[in-house]
Amino acid sequence: MNRPIIIGIAGGSASGKSSIAKKIMETYEGTTSVRIIRQDDYYKDQSDKPMEERVKTNYDHPFAFDNELLLKQISELIAGRSIDKPTYDYVHHTRSDVTERCDPCDVLILEGLFVLEDARIRSILDIKIFVDTDADVRFIRRLLRDVQERGRTLDSVVNQYMTTVRDMHEQFVEPSKRHADVIIPEGGSNVVAIDLLITKINSIIRRTEG
Amino acid sequence: MNRPIIIGIAGGSASGKSSIAKKIMETYEGTTSVRIIRQDDYYKDQSDKPMEERVKTNYDHPFAFDNELLLKQISELIAGRSIDKPTYDYVHHTRSDVTERCDPCDVLILEGLFVLEDARIRSILDIKIFVDTDADVRFIRRLLRDVQERGRTLDSVVNQYMTTVRDMHEQFVEPSKRHADVIIPEGGSNVVAIDLLITKINSIIRRTEG
Repeated sequence: MNRPIIIGIAGGSASGKSSIAKKIMETYEGTTSVRIIRQDDYYKDQSDKPMEERVKTNYDHPFAFDNELLLKQISELIAGRSIDKPTYDYVHHTRSDVTERCDPCDVLILEGLFVLEDARIRSILDIKIFVDTDADVRFIRRLLRDVQERGRTLDSVVNQYMTTVRDMHEQFVEPSKRHADVIIPEGGSNVVAIDLLITKINSIIRRTEG
Repeated sequence: MNRPIIIGIAGGSASGKSSIAKKIMETYEGTTSVRIIRQDDYYKDQSDKPMEERVKTNYDHPFAFDNELLLKQISELIAGRSIDKPTYDYVHHTRSDVTERCDPCDVLILEGLFVLEDARIRSILDIKIFVDTDADVRFIRRLLRDVQERGRTLDSVVNQYMTTVRDMHEQFVEPSKRHADVIIPEGGSNVVAIDLLITKINSIIRRTEG
């Protein structure tokens, strides 16, 4: 098996990056050619910290992520070996005991806030995508999702946004757009951009099979 | 023959939009599947105006272009009929007597400053690309090209940039980025983005032939 082609999809909170990744993955459901790794699954293990410490972590800062493990596991996939991806326990704010098997593949999608921010991650990406959605639209999407689906209050969403999310975006996410090969406006509803990516992935799979 | 897939490539002056179009066209040299139309060839005919009037035209404003003719000729291509594209005489500042034959094709590239600015043009585009390059880099490219290749003075380039090019960009080109499906940073040197477009074009040609 060849080294997989690795496609990085970065973008701000609620920019639509996971929607794009999801639409791509739906196309390859039931096949083994395309796999996905979500940076969110690589939040640092905090099992050695008491709960009152865990909740203080700034989850919108690059330091919250265990990029060492992420890079190590991607190297394993590149070397043709299967990995057991971590998953995160959002209730206990630490890594869960459950892992997910991920086998080597032709195309690997790597999706997350900071996948264009870390130079070591950038260096292994073949296609660097940044999903670019206006800040107000991103905030509104996040607000609706957190209030409607996660039962949070308006005040808590606004407070988190103004104290961490917004600053971290300006400091780390927005500047990482500089490294993108392609910028996709609006995210999951952008069928033309998604089609371009799927067409490219099809051509990689065809080449690998041929 | 099917309706051609039409790819619009817009972007500011010296953004790299013609480099991208050129790199794509080089891939299909000697084939008949992919054709290009440059909006620059559709500068308005000014043969009815005296020379002193012609030189006063603001060539960076959408009004300088004969988009009616452009749209009419694209309709002809869509209907499967050949067209004779106009060419522009930059010495006499008017349309030249020379035309260029362009036959129907599978993929039509439409490249120019304002191809995302005109709603009628946008409505016939299947893929809308905006080439996004920082203003200072665009100015420097333009300066070097105009001084080195066109023998213009620094003063004349700066004067034109500050009196028309910059304003027209802010007013008409930059806002048209809103309509893009995909934004490509930097232009001709962006091999990853060019490869995505060529892969898509290949898939269209293959489908048409199959």
